[in-house]
Amino acid sequence: MSQTVELKVDLGERSYPIYIGENLIGDTGAYLNKHGFKTGSPILIVTDETIAPYYLDTVVNSLRSAGYTVVTHIVPAGEQTKSLSMLEAIVTTALTGNLDRNSAVIALGGGVIGDLAGFVAATYMRGIRFIQIPTTILAHDSSVGGKVAVNHKLAKNIIGAFHQPDYVLYDVTTLRTLSPREVRSGLAEMVKHGLIWDEAFVDWLEESASKLLNLDLDALKYGIHQGCRIKSVVVAEDERENDLRAILNLGHTIGHALEAVAGYGELLHGEAIAIGMVGASLLAQKLGYSSDIYTRTKALLQKFELPVSLPKHYDVDAIMEAMSHDKKFKEGKMVFVIPTAIGKVEINRNVPAEWVRETVEQLKGEA
Amino acid sequence: MSQTVELKVDLGERSYPIYIGENLIGDTGAYLNKHGFKTGSPILIVTDETIAPYYLDTVVNSLRSAGYTVVTHIVPAGEQTKSLSMLEAIVTTALTGNLDRNSAVIALGGGVIGDLAGFVAATYMRGIRFIQIPTTILAHDSSVGGKVAVNHKLAKNIIGAFHQPDYVLYDVTTLRTLSPREVRSGLAEMVKHGLIWDEAFVDWLEESASKLLNLDLDALKYGIHQGCRIKSVVVAEDERENDLRAILNLGHTIGHALEAVAGYGELLHGEAIAIGMVGASLLAQKLGYSSDIYTRTKALLQKFELPVSLPKHYDVDAIMEAMSHDKKFKEGKMVFVIPTAIGKVEINRNVPAEWVRETVEQLKGEA
Ligand SMILES: NC(=O)c1ccc[n+]([C@@H]2O[C@H](COP(=O)([O-])OP(=O)(O)OC[C@H]3O[C@@H](n4cnc5c(N)ncnc54)[C@H](O)[C@@H]3O)[C@@H](O)[C@H]2O)c1
Ligand SMILES: NC(=O)c1ccc[n+]([C@@H]2O[C@H](COP(=O)([O-])OP(=O)(O)OC[C@H]3O[C@@H](n4cnc5c(N)ncnc54)[C@H](O)[C@@H]3O)[C@@H](O)[C@H]2O)c1
Ligand SMILES: [Zn+2]
Ligand SMILES: [Zn+2]
Repeated sequence: MSQTVELKVDLGERSYPIYIGENLIGDTGAYLNKHGFKTGSPILIVTDETIAPYYLDTVVNSLRSAGYTVVTHIVPAGEQTKSLSMLEAIVTTALTGNLDRNSAVIALGGGVIGDLAGFVAATYMRGIRFIQIPTTILAHDSSVGGKVAVNHKLAKNIIGAFHQPDYVLYDVTTLRTLSPREVRSGLAEMVKHGLIWDEAFVDWLEESASKLLNLDLDALKYGIHQGCRIKSVVVAEDERENDLRAILNLGHTIGHALEAVAGYGELLHGEAIAIGMVGASLLAQKLGYSSDIYTRTKALLQKFELPVSLPKHYDVDAIMEAMSHDKKFKEGKMVFVIPTAIGKVEINRNVPAEWVRETVEQLKGEA
Repeated sequence: MSQTVELKVDLGERSYPIYIGENLIGDTGAYLNKHGFKTGSPILIVTDETIAPYYLDTVVNSLRSAGYTVVTHIVPAGEQTKSLSMLEAIVTTALTGNLDRNSAVIALGGGVIGDLAGFVAATYMRGIRFIQIPTTILAHDSSVGGKVAVNHKLAKNIIGAFHQPDYVLYDVTTLRTLSPREVRSGLAEMVKHGLIWDEAFVDWLEESASKLLNLDLDALKYGIHQGCRIKSVVVAEDERENDLRAILNLGHTIGHALEAVAGYGELLHGEAIAIGMVGASLLAQKLGYSSDIYTRTKALLQKFELPVSLPKHYDVDAIMEAMSHDKKFKEGKMVFVIPTAIGKVEINRNVPAEWVRETVEQLKGEA
């Protein structure tokens, strides 16, 4: 059997392990057992309609064989599912399934399921235990840090909590059914983790791009491990998002603005931040940092077949408007995560908004 | 000027003061200032339609004079207001009012507003600061312990969090507009705090019942102070409700069952637990404890003009059914908080369900 790696996310009392390996979901029951969950309290699995046909039975059977009572709730796939009304529906399932204070919620899915099911776990009876079984590459990001949330019609992720899981069970074989576009989108966050923290990991990403795109299991295990490790080091130093944690937003200022103005489904999150990371490297150049940063960032993202330019039909005014909630915007300045070298970033609070506009224009010219 | 008392709720990092005094709401701005709130971030006040006409202007004006930007959200009065849809509506107000991470939510009202606004504060942007300005006597209970929640159609308080306030500003002069029935209901929880912990406070309650019913401000300040103190000692030892905190449920097992079977508005919470406390004292007698407990409990509640008997039309089977989620019920046993003396209780895990049924029958005979 292939090796399962264990990574510890170090958060004092709330520390937890991430297990990364192959064919782990068939052992879901054994892992619950190992973590001291008693069979007397029902376990709720939340998943989505796309994932359920592939993996739900395996997880349910593993739990039942280990003696657990299982309740399941299947939601529609997609971002709109992260809503208060979905929370209410899942709580109905939890109540009719007799979930109690010793129960656990398992998120079987990507970041959407992790955020939604995690918020259920954070609030049901004022908080019960929570386990993540990520099924996307992007979820290597969401499985570290304890952020859980649902959306409001006026803002994403605005209603939420910090609720750390008891553990994360990352079975890389589940990634095989992911669409190639979702694979690339998830890899964009992995690239981001390299760019903010670790040049050696960036070197490895450059060499391993095609292995990762082809879902080579060893490459996935290594990449996910490193991505989770970097995020967990950042989060451990700054659990509640004050300063250091902000570096995780590399590419996200422009990325979020693009997501806000894009038509529904036009840009996946990873695609938007890929363009955003190119933008940040252009800003680095304007701020006087080496132009190698831009060249290497762009080439790396291209290896991952991610977009590096902005389609011409995007409205620059609308993109700028979407970034204007920045408190410094009134003074003509913006706060940006800027790469200062490959594997290093700074939080720059004095980026001229005018340069940002120029950069967005420039992104249309990239190819 | 009359003295303002300061009580510290001792929860380590999350400790906070409760200020109890007269005409404090006119100083809301000064208290925010004292607690380090900057004027740059908007303050959201949540209150209800009954309370707003009396006190909202005073609070708003005090904040504005101190330089704060104020956003208000007024909800309908009553328990149905504790809902996810109300949370969503308040978050709309928060977003359009530009509340940010440094903003605070002020709950101006009773336990309903405290629970709802507190849950908004717990979840908006994954948690912002929270201030309670209680306007009911019952809220002396809800202002200690950090429990916040909304209801689900199948269960009360089932979606929530623990979110401690930064401080509580208890202005007893606001209690003057409370209806006499709400006054009595709130005093029932004060009696409960005496019965579980402090015979000397029970002595004082026996002497001071009529002063309290007549809203004598000094008596209110003392009673609220003692009630909050007792609750905070219990909570400080057991913030997340494991063992000791369960003693706060004296009278609540039967009380909650009565609320569940009663027609809407038939019984206020304090009325239900008053009957429940008489029930618990009857059980104490069956368990061999002195019958004085029963006699004194009942007489005390009668002094407070609270109900001590069950109206004849209540269906005993339905009441028992409402208590049957108790895990020991299958074995014919129930967990009960039992007074063992005046000012002392135990958690008894072996109360025969048959005795509970007898007790409920007996409660119909009380007068
Ligand atoms: N909490 C955090 O720290 C954090 C961090 C990053 C992103 N997020 C959130 O994560 C979400 C995005 O995550 P995501 O990209 O994983 O989205 P997702 O959960 O919507 O998954 C993407 C799509 O892939 C499908 N899918 C998932 N796993 C599959 C599999 N193994 N096989 C086939 N199809 C599969 C899903 O049904 C969905 O249609 C966003 O809502 C974002 O806000 C949260
Ligand atoms: N969080 C906790 O620890 C905790 C503890 C106990 C109770 N609670 C919750 O508290 C709620 C009950 O609290 P409550 O009894 O204060 O209810 P409430 O907030 O509904 O107030 C009772 C009524 O009095 C009115 N009112 C309030 N203050 C007034 C004033 N000064 N003048 C005139 N009218 C006024 C209100 O509009 C309402 O109609 C329940 O939802 C219960 O679940 C929470
Ligand atoms: Zn991201
Ligand atoms: Zn109560």
